[in-house]
Amino acid sequence: MKKDLTISGVSVRELAREYSTPLYVYDEGMMASRMDEFTSNFRSDKFNTHVAYASKAFLCKAMARLVNKKGLCIDVVSGGELYTVLSAGFPAEKIYFHGNNKAPYELEYALKSGVGTIVADNMDEIRDIAAMAEGLDTVANVMLRMNPGISAHTHEYIMTSAPDSKFGMALCDIAEIAEAIKEAEKTGHFKFKGIHSHIGSQIFAKDAYIAQIQTMSNFIHDLESEYSLPVKEISLGGGFAAYYTQKDEPIPVDEVCRTIIAECEKQKDAFALSFDTLSIEPGRSIAGEAGYTVYTVGYGKVSAGKKYVFVDGGMGDNIRPALYGAEYRCDVISEDDNGEASVCTVAGKCCESGDVIINAAEIPNAKKGDLILVYTTGAYGYSMSSNYNRLPRPAVVFVNGAESRVVVKRETWEDVASHDVTE
Amino acid sequence: MKKDLTISGVSVRELAREYSTPLYVYDEGMMASRMDEFTSNFRSDKFNTHVAYASKAFLCKAMARLVNKKGLCIDVVSGGELYTVLSAGFPAEKIYFHGNNKAPYELEYALKSGVGTIVADNMDEIRDIAAMAEGLDTVANVMLRMNPGISAHTHEYIMTSAPDSKFGMALCDIAEIAEAIKEAEKTGHFKFKGIHSHIGSQIFAKDAYIAQIQTMSNFIHDLESEYSLPVKEISLGGGFAAYYTQKDEPIPVDEVCRTIIAECEKQKDAFALSFDTLSIEPGRSIAGEAGYTVYTVGYGKVSAGKKYVFVDGGMGDNIRPALYGAEYRCDVISEDDNGEASVCTVAGKCCESGDVIINAAEIPNAKKGDLILVYTTGAYGYSMSSNYNRLPRPAVVFVNGAESRVVVKRETWEDVASHDVTE
Repeated sequence: MKKDLTISGVSVRELAREYSTPLYVYDEGMMASRMDEFTSNFRSDKFNTHVAYASKAFLCKAMARLVNKKGLCIDVVSGGELYTVLSAGFPAEKIYFHGNNKAPYELEYALKSGVGTIVADNMDEIRDIAAMAEGLDTVANVMLRMNPGISAHTHEYIMTSAPDSKFGMALCDIAEIAEAIKEAEKTGHFKFKGIHSHIGSQIFAKDAYIAQIQTMSNFIHDLESEYSLPVKEISLGGGFAAYYTQKDEPIPVDEVCRTIIAECEKQKDAFALSFDTLSIEPGRSIAGEAGYTVYTVGYGKVSAGKKYVFVDGGMGDNIRPALYGAEYRCDVISEDDNGEASVCTVAGKCCESGDVIINAAEIPNAKKGDLILVYTTGAYGYSMSSNYNRLPRPAVVFVNGAESRVVVKRETWEDVASHDVTE
Repeated sequence: MKKDLTISGVSVRELAREYSTPLYVYDEGMMASRMDEFTSNFRSDKFNTHVAYASKAFLCKAMARLVNKKGLCIDVVSGGELYTVLSAGFPAEKIYFHGNNKAPYELEYALKSGVGTIVADNMDEIRDIAAMAEGLDTVANVMLRMNPGISAHTHEYIMTSAPDSKFGMALCDIAEIAEAIKEAEKTGHFKFKGIHSHIGSQIFAKDAYIAQIQTMSNFIHDLESEYSLPVKEISLGGGFAAYYTQKDEPIPVDEVCRTIIAECEKQKDAFALSFDTLSIEPGRSIAGEAGYTVYTVGYGKVSAGKKYVFVDGGMGDNIRPALYGAEYRCDVISEDDNGEASVCTVAGKCCESGDVIINAAEIPNAKKGDLILVYTTGAYGYSMSSNYNRLPRPAVVFVNGAESRVVVKRETWEDVASHDVTE
């Protein structure tokens, strides 16, 4: 039993008292260090390197400012994310704009804002971007998302001729792709910048990245040698893992960076590739472990031998257990000694059986008013949160050194109903 | 290929033009009829009947007003839902307040607002409600949620000694429960009203309800005869199914109502039960089929033989396919004849492979600018919606006769970032 715990030296009990619960807390210093770890290790003497934070993992204006302050680029996947980062003063030229189905108004917004790189997902989009850039009398800098035929997840990966992903273009369509690029470039408003690929999420296997680099180098070599299309930038996407439970063995950041750099240097030489920039897009590996959720315990029960402890949040603020069967770990914070640890289900307050945060947590008996601190909720927690059951979304607090501050305000019941029309 | 479709006689194409897409559209008249169907069929000469709309399926102020206008009661599961229905002028005495982990501030809000029925989920809550009602010098009318040991879903149901549900109290704890009620009643601020149970969702098996009624009647008989606790109201919860695809065979409303009424009349006589009110809580069966989602088609592709069509929404506005593997059906609306139907995956614009609305829809080829109308999205679509990828949530429109009106305003990019603190 812990009487208290700290995040960046700040008492969790104090945070709960000051900001109420449920509460998302991020260790801003830890995120900054993680960003530094990426930028300092992802370096080569043979080409420039970009680390772009994948903002879909966790985004608010304060996060965009932090990413900018640390000198990273940022990747956005919608007009809403683009709006947020631009509002936070993020330099447009350092933004990568992704998405399998960008709307015309999103593309227009990106082009008018001078977004540095648009990552086109399919051949129709190549044509649309060229036409729109021409209409707006601007130049679109475009990378193409390729489907590398590799699907990696956790410890394994598979290579197929082409996985049936909703993202990217097939490598075998190289001739049509080259033609589409050349047609687009003829407008004078489309600049082909490079090739993007991404093989999955929460990847523990270094070999998967090696396979990706080899596959993509081959493809890029063909594009350069057979179609005379120089590929100046290569992005390998993200997928770098976070530590949720003891089952997870993320590759250390320095190691995965060095592995990728070494393989890319090797392939650059082997194929005489012309790229001068290599990019990666970490999201979860920056925000995941730095994020915590603090809950207050309410009721509890034993039902048919299954022990429950109920917290004041749930699937509204963390859908990942229900959505993916994602596993988390937690600690109980209590003034009292509540005895030995036992197996317990930490469930939420939503009116749904599947509203569970941790299925079999080994924790001491938690009683009403105790706090439960769930670890590694920083990625895809707040970003996927809903108002299911009309529960207001929690506040997000950044802790840095001994200081804490709200970066996303807590919603109220009024907020949740604020778009309802009153007749 | 459909050139257009109508909802309550209103052109879907017109709705898309006027309100933009993605768009939730509800046929208000159909919901009203469904409510009438429940209230007119759920009747008995032997006791009063209440139909309470389970608002977690779909709630906004306009919906609360419709429920009130049609004379139904309403069930809420959080302070946020309670706030919404009270703001819409819903009479407090006709509200049932549910939840496995109500917060003290939620209970206080309910008591101060004069909520008609609080459904207590566990014995600690019985004590808390009594103490709080005493402190506020009011009287709490309380039903108890029991765990009937029956778990029903789709065509089958199982009976166990007690399923390990997070909801309700075990039938075998009858002695402690009776004691807790009597203790609470001693305060003079706690009125024991009745017994609630709920066996699942999307139930196609009438037998499951029969089993529930028999089990609960037995329990209630014991409570009345052995513990001298009259049970004036019995609620059987909800779970009435909706039609999503041809795999679904919902029991017609009149039939399920008659079945329940007949069995309850039978058990009332057999056990000489004292209840004077019987309640049910339909949610999905009222809002589900009346709700539609209209999307605009963007890009499409064939990936490793899998054909995709991408729409301008996705898991942000409908998480059920990703969360439960829920199946939907859809139609394509196009000016052109796009040929024969073929198997196609309708996927969204979220940056996630699992962002799929329909996995194997048999639809004509849909091209950019066409509309896709997804059926039966009225329950747990809007209510579970998120801003994942910072996508604004769609507007909700009610159509009634030839008229349409916005009942929940569309979010903007600014709205999505409106709680971000600008430093």
